[in-house]
Amino acid sequence: MPSTRRYTLTISCPDRAGIIAAVSGFIAKHGGFIVEASYHTEQDAQRFFMRQEIRADSLPFDADEFRRRFSPLAQDFGMAWQLSDSDLKKRLVILVSKQDHCLDDLLHRWRSGELQVEIPCVISNHEDLRSFVEWHGIPYHFVDMQDKTAAFERIAALFEQHQGDSMVLARFMQILPPMLCQRFSGRIINIHHSFLPSFVGAKPYHQAYQRGVKLIGATCHYVTDELDAGPIIEQDTVRIDHGDTVDDLVRYGRDIEKTVLSRGLRYHVEDRVLVCGNKTIVFR
Amino acid sequence: MPSTRRYTLTISCPDRAGIIAAVSGFIAKHGGFIVEASYHTEQDAQRFFMRQEIRADSLPFDADEFRRRFSPLAQDFGMAWQLSDSDLKKRLVILVSKQDHCLDDLLHRWRSGELQVEIPCVISNHEDLRSFVEWHGIPYHFVDMQDKTAAFERIAALFEQHQGDSMVLARFMQILPPMLCQRFSGRIINIHHSFLPSFVGAKPYHQAYQRGVKLIGATCHYVTDELDAGPIIEQDTVRIDHGDTVDDLVRYGRDIEKTVLSRGLRYHVEDRVLVCGNKTIVFR
Amino acid sequence: MPSTRRYTLTISCPDRAGIIAAVSGFIAKHGGFIVEASYHTEQDAQRFFMRQEIRADSLPFDADEFRRRFSPLAQDFGMAWQLSDSDLKKRLVILVSKQDHCLDDLLHRWRSGELQVEIPCVISNHEDLRSFVEWHGIPYHFVDMQDKTAAFERIAALFEQHQGDSMVLARFMQILPPMLCQRFSGRIINIHHSFLPSFVGAKPYHQAYQRGVKLIGATCHYVTDELDAGPIIEQDTVRIDHGDTVDDLVRYGRDIEKTVLSRGLRYHVEDRVLVCGNKTIVFR
Amino acid sequence: MPSTRRYTLTISCPDRAGIIAAVSGFIAKHGGFIVEASYHTEQDAQRFFMRQEIRADSLPFDADEFRRRFSPLAQDFGMAWQLSDSDLKKRLVILVSKQDHCLDDLLHRWRSGELQVEIPCVISNHEDLRSFVEWHGIPYHFVDMQDKTAAFERIAALFEQHQGDSMVLARFMQILPPMLCQRFSGRIINIHHSFLPSFVGAKPYHQAYQRGVKLIGATCHYVTDELDAGPIIEQDTVRIDHGDTVDDLVRYGRDIEKTVLSRGLRYHVEDRVLVCGNKTIVFR
Repeated sequence: MPSTRRYTLTISCPDRAGIIAAVSGFIAKHGGFIVEASYHTEQDAQRFFMRQEIRADSLPFDADEFRRRFSPLAQDFGMAWQLSDSDLKKRLVILVSKQDHCLDDLLHRWRSGELQVEIPCVISNHEDLRSFVEWHGIPYHFVDMQDKTAAFERIAALFEQHQGDSMVLARFMQILPPMLCQRFSGRIINIHHSFLPSFVGAKPYHQAYQRGVKLIGATCHYVTDELDAGPIIEQDTVRIDHGDTVDDLVRYGRDIEKTVLSRGLRYHVEDRVLVCGNKTIVFR
Repeated sequence: MPSTRRYTLTISCPDRAGIIAAVSGFIAKHGGFIVEASYHTEQDAQRFFMRQEIRADSLPFDADEFRRRFSPLAQDFGMAWQLSDSDLKKRLVILVSKQDHCLDDLLHRWRSGELQVEIPCVISNHEDLRSFVEWHGIPYHFVDMQDKTAAFERIAALFEQHQGDSMVLARFMQILPPMLCQRFSGRIINIHHSFLPSFVGAKPYHQAYQRGVKLIGATCHYVTDELDAGPIIEQDTVRIDHGDTVDDLVRYGRDIEKTVLSRGLRYHVEDRVLVCGNKTIVFR
Repeated sequence: MPSTRRYTLTISCPDRAGIIAAVSGFIAKHGGFIVEASYHTEQDAQRFFMRQEIRADSLPFDADEFRRRFSPLAQDFGMAWQLSDSDLKKRLVILVSKQDHCLDDLLHRWRSGELQVEIPCVISNHEDLRSFVEWHGIPYHFVDMQDKTAAFERIAALFEQHQGDSMVLARFMQILPPMLCQRFSGRIINIHHSFLPSFVGAKPYHQAYQRGVKLIGATCHYVTDELDAGPIIEQDTVRIDHGDTVDDLVRYGRDIEKTVLSRGLRYHVEDRVLVCGNKTIVFR
Repeated sequence: MPSTRRYTLTISCPDRAGIIAAVSGFIAKHGGFIVEASYHTEQDAQRFFMRQEIRADSLPFDADEFRRRFSPLAQDFGMAWQLSDSDLKKRLVILVSKQDHCLDDLLHRWRSGELQVEIPCVISNHEDLRSFVEWHGIPYHFVDMQDKTAAFERIAALFEQHQGDSMVLARFMQILPPMLCQRFSGRIINIHHSFLPSFVGAKPYHQAYQRGVKLIGATCHYVTDELDAGPIIEQDTVRIDHGDTVDDLVRYGRDIEKTVLSRGLRYHVEDRVLVCGNKTIVFR
């Protein structure tokens, strides 16, 4: 929980000497106080990634002015970059089906102030969770999945209408059409209930049970048009044994899904995740 | 480290009421003192599995007499069973290539008395580790892999000549021919350097690096003729991040390979692993 | 989630040969089908512990008749024992203060059917969580802590009035008086936010931060009159690093507190925890 | 395994704006290529810590010239700092008693090239491990502990004679006198077989067993004159259960001791550990 306003600068550019010096020189020149700084070079791609958190009150200008002044330097280095402002909370639209463990977890983190976001609405293909969501004062939209094309258009419309920044599939159990995946590329986050790339697709706990693995896992990833194959943000595993039934796996799995999704989402919301090809850099 | 001699009785049979009562009744009738008892029913297969450790000195007869007397009861229940004697140490033949981290780990556990086995010989397709193995007083056999068929026949011959109970592929890096897998079914243990079923086959750390997973793992399993697809005995994972190169993954991996192989091998050696189809029951 | 009614028999008695045979013989004689069986001998105390789950429909009589018939055998072996019926759910009274992460977690597990208990009421020394609890249809009792003696008498009275089986201190933040600890010995479960025995008492996360430990933990234990010193049911740890502030520790801690409390509580509710002196046997 | 020569610059100084800019500016001015960069502000102490790895071949001068030129800047900021050269391997003197699991682990990492250090000698109060150490071509010094004062003077003398940089207590089982702790402050690393601050002093596994904890741990720390109370470098834990005897704890413990010591030592050797009061910053 940051107590003071911060700007977060994230940068990706071709690797070369002097990038850190140029950027930190720019910040220092204006008296900027760096609270957190992270760097990474992706060797194969020859690309450099960095993230800086700067105390807003240490700078003599606002975010827009920062962007204007930083722009020439960014151009010199061929940077893809953005500056975000901790006072402007990201807007997460959450999609659920009937299972509510991830939703419950996210809403608790939101109402306790741990997850610093806006949740403009929850969308579901079932009515089951309406009362729980509305108790939080959050609008709940039911979308009928009978006509899938219409349903996904309605979802896209709701997302835009609510000015969503990111879409969270909190066990939504529906495969998004490529149209949506491409349109909101890098903005849709899914929790898959297996340790990818193992057990892609449906019923991963049954698959894990059949294979006789000794640990099961969960994966939080960006959604792309290839099913369960997008850039991985976070994963974890938990030990099981021969005595565990599929129901037990499902139960253990729920706990790990919650943890992995909430961690991955936190990284995403705090601009800690930078994508490079089909991989992520996560500045924890 | 068991301080007293024990008999370990392992049983697999069709599930029905009264099995525990019959077996524990038989043991109690002869004054047998059960030190450890484990049970499991595999629901899909409708099979019952059990393992009992009995203090040898609590019984009025030896292992052979136990087997004779227990035989009728076993037949009544259609049991597949065996009784092993802690005084007769299992004989492990270890196969290695050039990498010695698993070998070093196993030999240390053996010479410290933690791993209660005989190691009649080590077999390798390289000469590199001869001096280290021979320092332990263990014979070292070099096998030339130029002619694979001859090589594997030589390996089988050495294994039998040394009266091996089990063969341990401690990063042997060679694919065993089906002939060997079938001939010594349930007796060959491999350590694979990935969290199976992810990243089967060659260079799993490179595969993991390419896919951008956030944990890597290792798997100890029985070898069958399908590559890396045999019953899994033990697995574990370790966290990595975007800063880790393939070399780092290899380094983290070595530690987890050692741990997973030594744990799996311990379970196997202590008759804690029972196989059911392509899955294992591990009575830890 | 057990789909069928089960009786759970838990036993503790002096160790000797023949206990398993006697108990499983008794069950088998009546056609009882054992679903799960666990045994343990506590060497120092020379005591034997066992737990059996039996399918209720496999027995020709009900729980009371089971108790009557089993009684003589139990007496012969000097057993402390009990038989519980999965159809009679345990009644948990939950005590909270202002922090609601454990409460939220438990109520979610309860309403999803994962935690098979009754929750007759929630008691708190603050009004903050009333609306959330009452949304679940659970009575919420505010108890003023100004007069501590009166407050704890009121808590005891509420607990008995609601026929509570166990009391769960879900971050209650008040030290229970010895009177209460003794009166409900073995029935009060606490979650302490450190890896005991490290960091007993107040502000354990601050203590951990000051000491510079590299992992923090949580402990679920039975409450006794010595602060944070009762029998431990479950513990876990999570990695932190130098970059984490006390606030970060608190945040990581919440997740581990939830996990550890819910696991410990599950073991307790399913009669998997047997106490031996100041230690627990947990038949997972 | 760094393939190219690197200089590692570590800095600690009072926190203020502009430090990163000044340092990275200095490096950039000379064309220095930063391979890895880490920063941390210790809030309570108001101190800033940083570590930079620079490719040696990217600079137009050697380490001594770097030190000369960097010195004025360092003085301006009141820095405590050092520059190390990856071509000059640190010299570790290892002290052992009879238990050899940590020694075996370290020597294996050393001979495989994973641990990039010199090991000029091993010192022990027993003769047991001489043959194993000498097989590696490393001198082995026996020191008689009858006369403790003389023994520790001999150890100090051997350490200096062999130009040791750091002393590693790899389960040495002897308490070092304050004289030694102070004389080689920050240069002596111990592995303690508990999760400190729990179970300080002798027989921690017995203490853990008595307390009935559900996980045990190990701690790698710098040695100070207060027993087991120095700055912690690395820790880890492993799950145990009621079925585990003290011997089992010792066995599990060995594995975790090895892992924790080797990780901590690696951080130390690569100049990743900076000390702040009684805490460490570890730039992994």
